[in-house]
Amino acid sequence: MRRPKVVIVGGGFGGLAVARGLKNADVEIVLIDKTNHHLFQPLLYQVAIASLSRGDIATPFREIFRTQSNIRFILDRVEAVDCQQQVVQLINETLSFDFLVLAPGSRPSFFGHEEWRHHVWSLKNLHDALGIRDHILHSFERAERLLPHCEAQRYLTFVIVGGGPTGVEFAGALAEIARNTIRPDFPLLRDHTIKIILVQKESRLLKGFPAQLSEHAKKDLEHLDVTVKLNCVVTDISEHGVQCNDEFIPTANVIWAAGNEASPLLRTLNMDLDPEGRISVGQDLSIPKYPSIFVIGDAACCLDENGDPLPGLAAVAMQQGRYVAHLIRHNPSPRSRVPFHYKDRGQMATIGKARAVANIKGWNVSGLPAWLLWSVVHVSFLIGFDKIRVIMEWIWFYLTYKSSERLIDIDFQPKKKDKT
Amino acid sequence: MRRPKVVIVGGGFGGLAVARGLKNADVEIVLIDKTNHHLFQPLLYQVAIASLSRGDIATPFREIFRTQSNIRFILDRVEAVDCQQQVVQLINETLSFDFLVLAPGSRPSFFGHEEWRHHVWSLKNLHDALGIRDHILHSFERAERLLPHCEAQRYLTFVIVGGGPTGVEFAGALAEIARNTIRPDFPLLRDHTIKIILVQKESRLLKGFPAQLSEHAKKDLEHLDVTVKLNCVVTDISEHGVQCNDEFIPTANVIWAAGNEASPLLRTLNMDLDPEGRISVGQDLSIPKYPSIFVIGDAACCLDENGDPLPGLAAVAMQQGRYVAHLIRHNPSPRSRVPFHYKDRGQMATIGKARAVANIKGWNVSGLPAWLLWSVVHVSFLIGFDKIRVIMEWIWFYLTYKSSERLIDIDFQPKKKDKT
Repeated sequence: MRRPKVVIVGGGFGGLAVARGLKNADVEIVLIDKTNHHLFQPLLYQVAIASLSRGDIATPFREIFRTQSNIRFILDRVEAVDCQQQVVQLINETLSFDFLVLAPGSRPSFFGHEEWRHHVWSLKNLHDALGIRDHILHSFERAERLLPHCEAQRYLTFVIVGGGPTGVEFAGALAEIARNTIRPDFPLLRDHTIKIILVQKESRLLKGFPAQLSEHAKKDLEHLDVTVKLNCVVTDISEHGVQCNDEFIPTANVIWAAGNEASPLLRTLNMDLDPEGRISVGQDLSIPKYPSIFVIGDAACCLDENGDPLPGLAAVAMQQGRYVAHLIRHNPSPRSRVPFHYKDRGQMATIGKARAVANIKGWNVSGLPAWLLWSVVHVSFLIGFDKIRVIMEWIWFYLTYKSSERLIDIDFQPKKKDKT
Repeated sequence: MRRPKVVIVGGGFGGLAVARGLKNADVEIVLIDKTNHHLFQPLLYQVAIASLSRGDIATPFREIFRTQSNIRFILDRVEAVDCQQQVVQLINETLSFDFLVLAPGSRPSFFGHEEWRHHVWSLKNLHDALGIRDHILHSFERAERLLPHCEAQRYLTFVIVGGGPTGVEFAGALAEIARNTIRPDFPLLRDHTIKIILVQKESRLLKGFPAQLSEHAKKDLEHLDVTVKLNCVVTDISEHGVQCNDEFIPTANVIWAAGNEASPLLRTLNMDLDPEGRISVGQDLSIPKYPSIFVIGDAACCLDENGDPLPGLAAVAMQQGRYVAHLIRHNPSPRSRVPFHYKDRGQMATIGKARAVANIKGWNVSGLPAWLLWSVVHVSFLIGFDKIRVIMEWIWFYLTYKSSERLIDIDFQPKKKDKT
């Protein structure tokens, strides 16, 4: 009998969990991703602020699957899915499947203001993170050149849009590194204010967390001299700055951590999508009418017992991935599938050195204990042999605030390579 | 009295030696470079083959000069030099000088075939090195996809043009990493030949070395299964491959290590340039008629006692830089300047793991002793606290052939950021 062919689109937390969950299963797996590595996205902001290097948080798929013989990796972009014909369309090739797992993730959305994309930096992949790093360093160089002109302040003002975990963690880390690591190298900027502003449209930060921790996170950020603006709606972004509510903030540095939408690949399925572009999946994470096509992770609108969509978290995607792997391996009839149930083990966010907030099974933890917890959890989830290196780099970094990663790897006026 | 203003263009080995040689001198230094870091170029090929990370061989200028108070760093591109007016033209600014040191380095030259530039990878800066790394990994991914089509072989064929130290070191290192580190991750390519071809137009490799060592280097490369083609002139390069002598080599991977020409900045001085675009400097490294303008490093045509131009080596640039710093500090009258004299301490090139050739004060050394010597010399020249890390990474790499740097940080079809 021919082995069932499982095609997995996307090698994030969800896709990877499916692939690993099918280790030694009697199936033939193809994993397709448009990069060659799995990315530990929760630590991506640390690459952006140059406290970790890219090798620390990314592992090539081929390395991950070195000991798994039933999987093949393909570096490619999936253009479309044909549910009826059971094929996936790549750029120059079509692949048929018996089971399809779509885990294509999400991308930044700008609430209908596509033009904002040109003036902000978002934080989705290594390319983004390295771009932000170069941009921050360029801004300091630029500010020093512009002195004593007041335009310099625009380059020393950093606006982070979005008060979820990404925005909060990035703002805290940037505040520390900008003032403690970068500024000492710019003698002329020593007496200048570096403004770091976190803009949140809700009435509190980290709205998925208990209110008490939101308040704690805000205080921790303010302790690091981050200005937190709540109930603050961004109405315009240009090369000059950000308009929020009635205030215009002149800045050359806008980091976008506000909205996401599911991958546009889902549109090719010709199904109803929710406002975030996600597909509503059934209790078994399959899509309507096609019990062998699953959608997981950020791309799935999966309701919890209260009827609310599950958040776009690594933990959700991983549990979904393991669930789907189990279904494919044992292949019960669609009617006898046990529904997916998300076990919420808690959430955490770190705010700079030795500060964090965590909600673990109803317990609220903050400060150093939460930060230690955060460190242990994040390092233990890293894949491969980099754990020790990451721990060493963190210890080194937090003891010295030094980083070996402050390099701009493009010329002042980048040459465009003709090939890509 | 106003302190003399010293402008240094370029922070390579030469420019950096001038800046450091003027530490605590009663001058005001401005160092201008188009990147924010000094690059240890002799190890750049190790970043290209992913055995070192960029932080290992590059150090931000601002970090290097943290304890030097008489220097200011400017990240910019120098557009022109006006010798008469004693000013340097930046993109949006002019800078006046009392002393000018031009150390702008060189760039690849294609012997009049500018169109070849689009089909080759050269190895001058971090951007190039990371580009080569991505390209090599992409070629393996591409080859696996193309199987069983014979076109796959084109992606598994690597042609290195130029048999100087860069070409020899890159070819040896690539041979090791391609077969031992990369290929094991591509199960379908296990039985396919990876061809690595080094093309040299001269009758021997490493023509600056004694003939005995050239022969030794060739044998070492052949031991690593590198095909060395001597007396082989490249007459055409296209996207399909390389034409050399009567043979066409189909390849998608051409690395250019053949020719260099001095920075085009020198053309703005309106002086005679030699065929490599260099300026002939006097015995005090100043240019004709302008005793306070010096040219050093790859940009200078500086004759040795036999009347031959000194080679473009780090050691030459560093000695020249120290000499010029001494002149500026003590400022003797132009007529009483002691001529520059290059002390040749030898040359070395490494060929893969535990193999190298070295010529030290007339002694020829090869094999493991030369390699150990090479390692000690290169690590001791690295700047900053990265030495221990580099040593650890080498030990790890040579013991395991594993590298944590095998990441492609661009998407399969890279998105072009609208900003730069």
